[in-house]
Amino acid sequence: MSNNNLISASEACELLSISPDTLRRLVRTNSITTIPDPTDARVKLYDRDLIISLKRPAMTISTRHKVITLSNNKGGVSKTTSAISLAAEAAKEGLQVLLIDAAPQASATISLYESEKEIKENELLLGWLKGNVSFEELIKPIVFEKFKIDFIASGSKNDQIDRSNPLEVVPALREFFDSWEDSPYDYIFIDTDPSFGTLVSMAQVGSHFVLCPVQADVLSVDGTAQLSRQLQRARILTRSPFPALLGFFLSRFDSRRRVCKEALETLKAAYPDYVLQTVIPDNVRVMESPAQKAPINLTAPDSKGALAYQSLWQEVRERVERSITTNS
Amino acid sequence: MSNNNLISASEACELLSISPDTLRRLVRTNSITTIPDPTDARVKLYDRDLIISLKRPAMTISTRHKVITLSNNKGGVSKTTSAISLAAEAAKEGLQVLLIDAAPQASATISLYESEKEIKENELLLGWLKGNVSFEELIKPIVFEKFKIDFIASGSKNDQIDRSNPLEVVPALREFFDSWEDSPYDYIFIDTDPSFGTLVSMAQVGSHFVLCPVQADVLSVDGTAQLSRQLQRARILTRSPFPALLGFFLSRFDSRRRVCKEALETLKAAYPDYVLQTVIPDNVRVMESPAQKAPINLTAPDSKGALAYQSLWQEVRERVERSITTNS
Repeated sequence: MSNNNLISASEACELLSISPDTLRRLVRTNSITTIPDPTDARVKLYDRDLIISLKRPAMTISTRHKVITLSNNKGGVSKTTSAISLAAEAAKEGLQVLLIDAAPQASATISLYESEKEIKENELLLGWLKGNVSFEELIKPIVFEKFKIDFIASGSKNDQIDRSNPLEVVPALREFFDSWEDSPYDYIFIDTDPSFGTLVSMAQVGSHFVLCPVQADVLSVDGTAQLSRQLQRARILTRSPFPALLGFFLSRFDSRRRVCKEALETLKAAYPDYVLQTVIPDNVRVMESPAQKAPINLTAPDSKGALAYQSLWQEVRERVERSITTNS
Repeated sequence: MSNNNLISASEACELLSISPDTLRRLVRTNSITTIPDPTDARVKLYDRDLIISLKRPAMTISTRHKVITLSNNKGGVSKTTSAISLAAEAAKEGLQVLLIDAAPQASATISLYESEKEIKENELLLGWLKGNVSFEELIKPIVFEKFKIDFIASGSKNDQIDRSNPLEVVPALREFFDSWEDSPYDYIFIDTDPSFGTLVSMAQVGSHFVLCPVQADVLSVDGTAQLSRQLQRARILTRSPFPALLGFFLSRFDSRRRVCKEALETLKAAYPDYVLQTVIPDNVRVMESPAQKAPINLTAPDSKGALAYQSLWQEVRERVERSITTNS
């Protein structure tokens, strides 16, 4: 980044049409990263590209589909359960849904699709990236009693993607999704590994929104700030307002434990506009769902877990629709 | 990439102020990639960002140092020997030179510096990327009888960089070099692994120029086209004319073998402006040099190999100086 790209606080305020106080709040809540002036470290400078990427009166999506990645570089925060449950809620409403397992750990694939056989390279994103199969050939419908979810499986071979050419891989989904004119989907959900490797970066850069489950009892504001910075970098790369942070939500929430309530308050204080109302309870029915090879809205539709995901989906859908204008 | 970014051949000609014939030649020589029109595959479209990145009446370097990466995703083409020999020629002329070993295979480190001990993480680019040490702390001078080369060692631990966050790693050297105002160097050479992984992408994106040794008897025009596309992607990412292809040169050249001469002709036909005149002979003295822990211009200064590298350095320096204007 050349130094010409650094601007002062007052220039940043002017570009965003906001007051210095609002700018300070955005810096405090980690929405904007500052860079110390090389000649005087007390002076804070701002990255022009980043500031421009935040200037978005309306975010225009030029495709029918909205792409949402579930991401958190900490493991065990219910990314997979959330991806499956949200896809199932959207599908239950009659929307056309594609769920992509982009995690070499393949938890979604094991939960919904195949748990025994090793998936062939040409049924994975790896085969597509190598140019061996078309994207459409990867898609397998999973038909449940009341709806279907189209699915792209994952497997340990996708690990190779993390060792491949990032200049080729990172923009690949973005380029494909932007140009996929006859995409039949309303929503595309992507489940990812707990890392910020090449494969996760590809999923994030390919997304309109990133949704981040946070486990209440291992909450680290550091961790969430890291995701926020990662999305900033991705927006600089794509020169666009995407991927935008859709929000954080607490998973495995136990309302009887004080640490859970405290975690929620800490998160709300750090990201006032980015914490979803819904919390996902620590619920045994949610845990059992994968063993039955079906989403929780089918295996235990009246459980607290299922009701929570129903409410989470409503919030997610409203946030997405409020954030965008469709370019049609 | 949104479809709005695709432009027609005539728009591309206008942007570059060139004729349709010149555009066709650039496409034929792999300097420009075309994209088939989604509605009619016979029509070729062009990426606007890429075309703009080629529009460079003069390439301005805003730092004193010029950064040159030796790169080829095929192994055994003399990248390391070339990096060391060019750095040594530049140093012999009295220029301030930094040589960076960015290959986890660490051939340059083994040849010049340490062959026995495992280099500590904090003496490697890995330690710098993790924020544990400053860039300057990595630099160790290697003092020869007539000149010194400043050196950053590599080791197998750098392999971890290939598994780390590409959104963070790929732009890191670029950002550092662009902002390194008190850099004492005239030339910085970077040796890389035979891959296009995250670490190699970081080196390329951090460079002004990429120089590509090609082995005469395993010549693959496919391979060179791949490097050319890789640099295009990097220029789109950096929104700048860098990294530019400095050129290809043939290494391990045996003038008695027909295959070598044919390889040279094929390369010249494919890249008329990008094949250096100098060829590096298949020379036993070049091979023996690493065992003596010194560059060939010291170990065998009158050998054919040493004279070839002397001539290669003159060509490299002229090409660099011809390509740039310095912004001071």
